[in-house]
Parts: sequence; structure tokens; C-alpha cells
Amino acid sequence: MPAPRIDDPPLRIDLDLRVHLGDQIAIGPGKADLLESIRRTGSISAAGREMGMSYKHTWLLVESMNGCFQSALVQAVKGGKKGGGAVLTDLGLEVLACYRHMQTLAADAIGPEVSQFKRRIHES
Amino acid sequence: MPAPRIDDPPLRIDLDLRVHLGDQIAIGPGKADLLESIRRTGSISAAGREMGMSYKHTWLLVESMNGCFQSALVQAVKGGKKGGGAVLTDLGLEVLACYRHMQTLAADAIGPEVSQFKRRIHES
Repeated sequence: MPAPRIDDPPLRIDLDLRVHLGDQIAIGPGKADLLESIRRTGSISAAGREMGMSYKHTWLLVESMNGCFQSALVQAVKGGKKGGGAVLTDLGLEVLACYRHMQTLAADAIGPEVSQFKRRIHES
Repeated sequence: MPAPRIDDPPLRIDLDLRVHLGDQIAIGPGKADLLESIRRTGSISAAGREMGMSYKHTWLLVESMNGCFQSALVQAVKGGKKGGGAVLTDLGLEVLACYRHMQTLAADAIGPEVSQFKRRIHES
């Protein structure tokens, strides 16, 4: 599921939701997309490539997320044709769903105001 | 009024709301704070200083906002003891209020989910 976005060119409203834990971002738009990509590709390196990030950077993001929650969101799996990969744990799936749900709730909540905003915007 | 924030250390949830018009950000967290600072200080340069920005950068932000709406949000005023300053126009006040209202609506909407998120967060 893509992140919800209120998109009515030339007007576009982004709602960037970030959950901070101390100095770290437990989950935000980029990390949510990364979880989704790992779920889809079954691989941290493939997800990183898909998002144009180095393997090291991708791994650091995964490690940072894993450390922010009560247990890991992403887990390595061994074996299989491709010699292992990664999956989202049950908690990882829950956190991703909860994050997307919060995005949808927030976007829905401001829907009625957006039309008011539109009237004030300069349409060239 | 400060931007609403769900803040319960070490967990903090930021909802950054950005209204884009084509390639420009018509209003976002920084520009809303700038409008608020201009309203309070009555001066673009004082607002810029308060936010640690150069006068030129502050002016460019104001110009960009003014150009995104049907009329200006910030207006120069001449005269007075200090030789002029700046005020928010009626539209500027409306846009700022509408933006803050959207922030509050979005934050309120996700409130119930935040407690669910908290349970999954690692409390060290």
C-alpha cells in the first residue's frame, strides 16, 4: 500500500509522520517504505537497491528500527534458492500496518480543510 | 500557538504537514513558524533573527509564500517609531490558522493509535 497523499495538481499535501525514540527515528516515511520493500522483495539488499541506497546504509536503517522496538521488525532467514534473505516479523508487519493506518487517519482528518486551503492557493 | 506534538519521552511523534504548490512549499512547519514570528515581532528581520536565518533567506521564504497564494500573506508597513516593519494580512492570518487547525486535526486523529504504538516501542 502506498503512503496516502492528498494530490490534486498543482496542490499536493504531504503528511510526514515520524515516530522518534530519543535521538532515533523509530519509523518514518523512508523506513516504512523500506519495510514494505523488504516484505515485497524478501531481501534487505534488494530493498536497498530498489530505494537507491547502499547495502551498508540499508542495514543501518534496519538495525536502528530493530533496536527501537521490543523485538526485531526484520529478521534474516537462511537457506532457500538464493542463500537466504529477510522477512518482516509479526511485529514488523504490525508496526508497518499501524504506521500506514496512522497516515490514513491523519490524511482523512484534514480532508475537509484541504478544500478550504485550495481556495486560497494561487492557481496560475 | 505552538505546533501540536505528541510528546511522551522517550517517544515523540512528529507530523510534518507540507502544502506543495508545484515545486514550491506553499506552507510547511518552518514557514508556519516564520509567519507566527512575523506576527509576534512585527518585523521580517526580527523574525529571521529569532529563527537563526539570514535576512535574505527570510525574505526569500516570505516571497515564496506570498507568490503561492491568491494574495500576499505578509505585507510591509511603513512609518512608526522603528521605520516600518511587516504584518500578516487577513489572508496570512487565515492561512496560518487553517494550517494549525490541520495539524491539530491530524494529531488528534492518530491519538488513539499512539498508545498502541507505545506498547511496541522499546523502553530502555
